[in-house]
Amino acid sequence: MKHRGDVMKMLRWIEKALKNVGAKTELCETVTQNYEKGKTISQPPTLLAITGNDSKKKTLCVYGHIDVKNAQIEDGWVSDPFIMVQRNGKLCGRGTTDDKGPILCWIHVLEAFLKMKVPVPINIKFVIEGMHEVGSQGLNKLIVSKRNTFFSGIDYCCITDGYWLGTMKPCLTYGLRGLCYFTVEVIGGKKILDSGLFGGAVYEPLHDLIFMLNSLVDLNGDIDIPGLDKDIAPMTPTEESLYKHIDVDTEEIRRVLGVPKVKHEDCRIDHLMSRWRRPSLSVHGIEKVPSDPGVHTIIPNRAIGKFSIRIVPDQKPERVKEFVTTYLERLFEVRRSPNRMKVKSFSFRSPHPNSYLGYSQIQSNKVGMSN
Amino acid sequence: MKHRGDVMKMLRWIEKALKNVGAKTELCETVTQNYEKGKTISQPPTLLAITGNDSKKKTLCVYGHIDVKNAQIEDGWVSDPFIMVQRNGKLCGRGTTDDKGPILCWIHVLEAFLKMKVPVPINIKFVIEGMHEVGSQGLNKLIVSKRNTFFSGIDYCCITDGYWLGTMKPCLTYGLRGLCYFTVEVIGGKKILDSGLFGGAVYEPLHDLIFMLNSLVDLNGDIDIPGLDKDIAPMTPTEESLYKHIDVDTEEIRRVLGVPKVKHEDCRIDHLMSRWRRPSLSVHGIEKVPSDPGVHTIIPNRAIGKFSIRIVPDQKPERVKEFVTTYLERLFEVRRSPNRMKVKSFSFRSPHPNSYLGYSQIQSNKVGMSN
Repeated sequence: MKHRGDVMKMLRWIEKALKNVGAKTELCETVTQNYEKGKTISQPPTLLAITGNDSKKKTLCVYGHIDVKNAQIEDGWVSDPFIMVQRNGKLCGRGTTDDKGPILCWIHVLEAFLKMKVPVPINIKFVIEGMHEVGSQGLNKLIVSKRNTFFSGIDYCCITDGYWLGTMKPCLTYGLRGLCYFTVEVIGGKKILDSGLFGGAVYEPLHDLIFMLNSLVDLNGDIDIPGLDKDIAPMTPTEESLYKHIDVDTEEIRRVLGVPKVKHEDCRIDHLMSRWRRPSLSVHGIEKVPSDPGVHTIIPNRAIGKFSIRIVPDQKPERVKEFVTTYLERLFEVRRSPNRMKVKSFSFRSPHPNSYLGYSQIQSNKVGMSN
Repeated sequence: MKHRGDVMKMLRWIEKALKNVGAKTELCETVTQNYEKGKTISQPPTLLAITGNDSKKKTLCVYGHIDVKNAQIEDGWVSDPFIMVQRNGKLCGRGTTDDKGPILCWIHVLEAFLKMKVPVPINIKFVIEGMHEVGSQGLNKLIVSKRNTFFSGIDYCCITDGYWLGTMKPCLTYGLRGLCYFTVEVIGGKKILDSGLFGGAVYEPLHDLIFMLNSLVDLNGDIDIPGLDKDIAPMTPTEESLYKHIDVDTEEIRRVLGVPKVKHEDCRIDHLMSRWRRPSLSVHGIEKVPSDPGVHTIIPNRAIGKFSIRIVPDQKPERVKEFVTTYLERLFEVRRSPNRMKVKSFSFRSPHPNSYLGYSQIQSNKVGMSN
């Protein structure tokens, strides 16, 4: 939130760089952003830019973002993440890969065409935003409002926020898993209590919450929610055969991620499928309970767990919501806790399949996101 | 930490008030406090004071603290917790009950004796500190260093930081449960990962941690750690009979705590025993994972769970540590996660029994804490 000024600076820098290679640009003010309950803040505008306007050429829409998630040196950075340094011939800093570097590549390409006096073979429309890491609030609205103007006549989209398979192999993303985000809150009493005085005498909300979060996955960390696998598009022989030719080194991926082991380490096909065509569930954080260092002996009177499920064709967000909510409500009944429980679901995005992967059903694939 | 100045102001205020009723006072500088790893800060001094020095009288040592835990209006306060207001004939504000009000009572009592020109029937030694809520760091050292001077010749101790049973009944505390504090940390890789890219492909530390925290208690929230009940002093008929005469209204307690239900609501003896003579386990917070509002789609690369067990006679902290550590290590093996797990234990305090409660073994009960 406090870095909004830096985001604006960066947007203006990119705008200038795009103008220098001949683009027509526009900074589109979007609406206010919901921050906390009842609190709103003006969000950074979205930068739209066009180079080329030749109706005989195809038009490509390029998406990129210049904001980043927060980072601290404690997260495992070798140097201050917000000061770019050159290390082993690479530029290292927060956002160099995700996603400022890739945006810069487009600008360099256009500059090269310009300098060589070679006409660019396509028209390009850029959508550069500064709200990606907080759910692209406002982007949908902008796209809808300009669907007959800026966003019309687009032949292809390129989300320039992808990744490489390992360190040596660029990766073309043909589809993206969707997202169903949930919070589950357990509310006990009105006060935070002292565990010395009341531990053992009350039903602790955090005990309840941990029980429920634990029931979402099995011992292996895989989803354990009844019904959730029902709608997944069956694997076709064509799709399966595609995976056989994808060259990937799971040991290299393991090393790059710095984890002791990746899932399906000895089967690269299963490994890729676990990332690309199977749903997964991650727990992201716990709200309303202390997360700072030090000794706390309190019994929190409420606790909010945050988790999300990455969904794949043909899973429908609404159905996923139903399975998750039903399951959590049943679980809470089993526990017979007198506390209150609330499940909230938001930030739904359908998966973005591409026919190339052989998914049985191709969904309407709007620009950016479908919901 | 930023309120250290207020703590000092309060200590000086109390010192002046005690001097006004004839006490000899001393502000004892204690050592620096460990805050975070590698960070220390000077801690507020401990105020020692003596009134009366008559060797024919008994000497009482009174303990109190003037610091408070943090509080926010969101925790359920009707008005700003740090601005004292009068409501329904009561003075409301953070620390009025715990523990500034009770300290003030002693000063008022001494003032009354003074004004009525009646000699105080006992000598009183005061120990007033400003570090209670962060584990009384430095207090032990001070007590040991002054055991042959200030802390010698004490006949009774009164910890003036007690509570009432409900709203109408003051409560004399004859013993205190001890505390065994633990952190359990699960460490995966070196980086925080994006759940869209890697959800399903890695073993998530938070999944592991939640599994382990959930295994500490049963469906009812009661301790489920093998062996932990082994050493608990058996109930004697005398002890059991004492509970029969304690008048307490569990419904009133429920209402005051603002919880939907207290444990053993229909059996006041069981309710009191669950708070006084049975161990309990509370989970206090989760470190290293997001706890702020908003949508996070990260996979935290590490997570630290904090929990503590309130222990009772004849449980020994070292044995409790062994049971907990052994259990967590076995659990982690069952889970077969490739992540690393670390159990740390600290802040041990033995229970403080009093023979009055009939515990089978009376432990050495030093001033303040025994460890």
